[in-house]
Amino acid sequence: MDNETLEFDLETLVQEGHLDTIRERFEQLHPADIAAMINELEAREGWTALALLELAEQAEVFGYLDHDFQVELATVAPRAKLARIVVEMNADERADLYNELSDEQREALMPGLVQAEREDIRRLAAYEEGTAGAIMTSDYATLPPDLTATQALTKLRREAPDKETIYRAYVVDEDRKLIGSVRLQDLITAPARAKVGGIMETNTLAVAVSDDQEDVARKIARYDILALPVVDADGRIVGIVTHDDALDVIEEETTDDFHRVGTVTNLASSVGEATILMLYRARIVWLVLLVFGNIFSGAGIAYFEDTIAAHLALMFFLPMLIASGGNAGSQAATLMVRALATGDVEFRDWGYLLLRELAVALALGLTMAFAVSFLGFWRGDASLAATVSLSMVLIVVVGSLIGMSLPFALARFNLDPATASAPLVTSIADVVGVMIYFSIATSFLSLPS
Amino acid sequence: MDNETLEFDLETLVQEGHLDTIRERFEQLHPADIAAMINELEAREGWTALALLELAEQAEVFGYLDHDFQVELATVAPRAKLARIVVEMNADERADLYNELSDEQREALMPGLVQAEREDIRRLAAYEEGTAGAIMTSDYATLPPDLTATQALTKLRREAPDKETIYRAYVVDEDRKLIGSVRLQDLITAPARAKVGGIMETNTLAVAVSDDQEDVARKIARYDILALPVVDADGRIVGIVTHDDALDVIEEETTDDFHRVGTVTNLASSVGEATILMLYRARIVWLVLLVFGNIFSGAGIAYFEDTIAAHLALMFFLPMLIASGGNAGSQAATLMVRALATGDVEFRDWGYLLLRELAVALALGLTMAFAVSFLGFWRGDASLAATVSLSMVLIVVVGSLIGMSLPFALARFNLDPATASAPLVTSIADVVGVMIYFSIATSFLSLPS
Repeated sequence: MDNETLEFDLETLVQEGHLDTIRERFEQLHPADIAAMINELEAREGWTALALLELAEQAEVFGYLDHDFQVELATVAPRAKLARIVVEMNADERADLYNELSDEQREALMPGLVQAEREDIRRLAAYEEGTAGAIMTSDYATLPPDLTATQALTKLRREAPDKETIYRAYVVDEDRKLIGSVRLQDLITAPARAKVGGIMETNTLAVAVSDDQEDVARKIARYDILALPVVDADGRIVGIVTHDDALDVIEEETTDDFHRVGTVTNLASSVGEATILMLYRARIVWLVLLVFGNIFSGAGIAYFEDTIAAHLALMFFLPMLIASGGNAGSQAATLMVRALATGDVEFRDWGYLLLRELAVALALGLTMAFAVSFLGFWRGDASLAATVSLSMVLIVVVGSLIGMSLPFALARFNLDPATASAPLVTSIADVVGVMIYFSIATSFLSLPS
Repeated sequence: MDNETLEFDLETLVQEGHLDTIRERFEQLHPADIAAMINELEAREGWTALALLELAEQAEVFGYLDHDFQVELATVAPRAKLARIVVEMNADERADLYNELSDEQREALMPGLVQAEREDIRRLAAYEEGTAGAIMTSDYATLPPDLTATQALTKLRREAPDKETIYRAYVVDEDRKLIGSVRLQDLITAPARAKVGGIMETNTLAVAVSDDQEDVARKIARYDILALPVVDADGRIVGIVTHDDALDVIEEETTDDFHRVGTVTNLASSVGEATILMLYRARIVWLVLLVFGNIFSGAGIAYFEDTIAAHLALMFFLPMLIASGGNAGSQAATLMVRALATGDVEFRDWGYLLLRELAVALALGLTMAFAVSFLGFWRGDASLAATVSLSMVLIVVVGSLIGMSLPFALARFNLDPATASAPLVTSIADVVGVMIYFSIATSFLSLPS
């Protein structure tokens, strides 16, 4: 992304009409990099730059553009030229584009396409967002089992330029039911007359169209595969999900998790592109909820007003004690949220993990209690040191166990474990911390009668 | 991962010697799933189960096992059999294994391998962890430019069973310098007599052996490619990094970021497998640092003891005010940490993002101030309400700007932006919150003279 000079150049070059220079520059670049530069332009200038490329590359670059910018370009581009680009695009990318277009734009675009393509787009665009159907592509190759290796290669050779990936072809029976798959390299190394049905692998993994996109992506990652076929309820192949789309899904879901543990919810765009209103909406809900959550901490303090009034030195330790419970709890919650997301730990591990957390938290709490006991002596006396140290151990242990358990509890009720954000854990740990600290203080320290 | 019944079965089946049953079960399963089940066994039982597979599958399953378990198996497995598995393993996976073995184990293993394999393992194992060299494999195919398409296919056909991926072959000159690459499907569709040098793509992306593994992985993700060739200082090809390794790197780095944002550092194993001591070590450092960070909040409160003694009602609002600054700041930090990691925003965007954050934070602060002003009236009077509301706005704005800027400031000094954890931001925001709140209170509320 360090194309700073080039980006600046592109805008000026377009404005001043140095189109040949742009063409030369573009030849040196990967379509993804060209797209990154065009993304920064105004729509009309972007179209001028895009139009300089050959059709195949136009389609590839177009597929890499931000969705918002694609829609803007669709508005300024001449209908016929846009239709030609759409014909060339990958089947999954153009279905995504279709979903972003307005009704008017769709009506302007569709007549430029042949019947089969219109149907392909409508079919792919119809699958619900977040499912395998919504991320799959129809650019895959199929083979009947009774072809020979040579015949199969001829068929693939004929179809190759159209297909996103022919590294693996899917073997289907006369009803298009998936019965196996064969790698291109196995076809090449097989005896010329060997039948596809004899070479193919029969235990081909497949997913259903309605499967969750994250499960599909995790399967591709787990089995180190290039593409996973998608079948309908009758076992007929309807598409494939490719490794690059799986990576995008994993990145997207990870970003969502990341935001959720930071109490940012449902941000409707990338952070870089988000508007003030989008960010406000994504952040205000949890902030206000947490304010009211913190009323309980305030109420706890108010409840112990007599103890505080008698021993104002207690206030010095309040922030560090309640923060420690929240911090230890946040650590425990973070570890569990990510481990649950990657499948590193599972729901049934809760019991063992809780015991392990108890041991870890005790060790952490004792270390921290030791550290603060000196501060207790310094600001007061032995009974203050004892109050502060004992509170620290209890607060860290209770905070950790809450933080560790919350993601599991949320998962148990089919909520997202990542809702167990650091701020939520901290707020709960704060209330608990206030109660533990002042309860111990009230019973350890003498009150004026 | 829902192989609960199967896993239980496997242990019992191994112990009771039902080896034929295990063989049948294994036939239904993907190597990754078999590995997940073997991982749960004792080393000796694991070896018994692994030995039931055919050699090629043994090697594949072995590659999916946890590194710790691989080393345990290497201890119990007969030398000769282990050597045969190592010969069959992917070049990058066996180099990783070599790095995990003790000197004794290495000495026991190496004589079982032929010279070329020993050298390949030592060469790959020598690259520094975290670099392209450390994750690359030597299982790739090369072609000279002067072969015809037919000759090239014959060569690849001969080499195919050995190579991890021959979807793309790399074209090298007589010094092994990378001059281009060619897709298998392009060789198949090319005229039989066309020269490789004429069909190949010349603008093949490549990375250097010393490049950071995360940069390499992000490049593979950005350009949607299957593998990226790795070249030495003279431009000679020395390996390739494949898409599945890129995905593993991205997952690993994301987990690190996730943990770092939760103040968990350098966890030496997966969360599920970590020992109590590992977890203690990964968590204690930041917890103790933050305790001392919170001394400043305590000192701030102690400094305003007179104000507090005169208006104990102020304490009720303390938790919610300082927590709000920390929460808004954590949100801002989380958004920036992730956006910087994925390349969504860059260092040069700081200025614009700061202005946007100011606007968002003002809107958030005003909303929250409005909410708490009622509480101010309820617990006190108009001057308390004014104190609390004004403090809320200022604390949220300052907390947000700190949270948003900290990841950039860390990146500026070449530190990891993810060090801007929610607890760190909260601790800083707490101190600032205490100072803002009590300063405003001291000037707004009357003190007994």
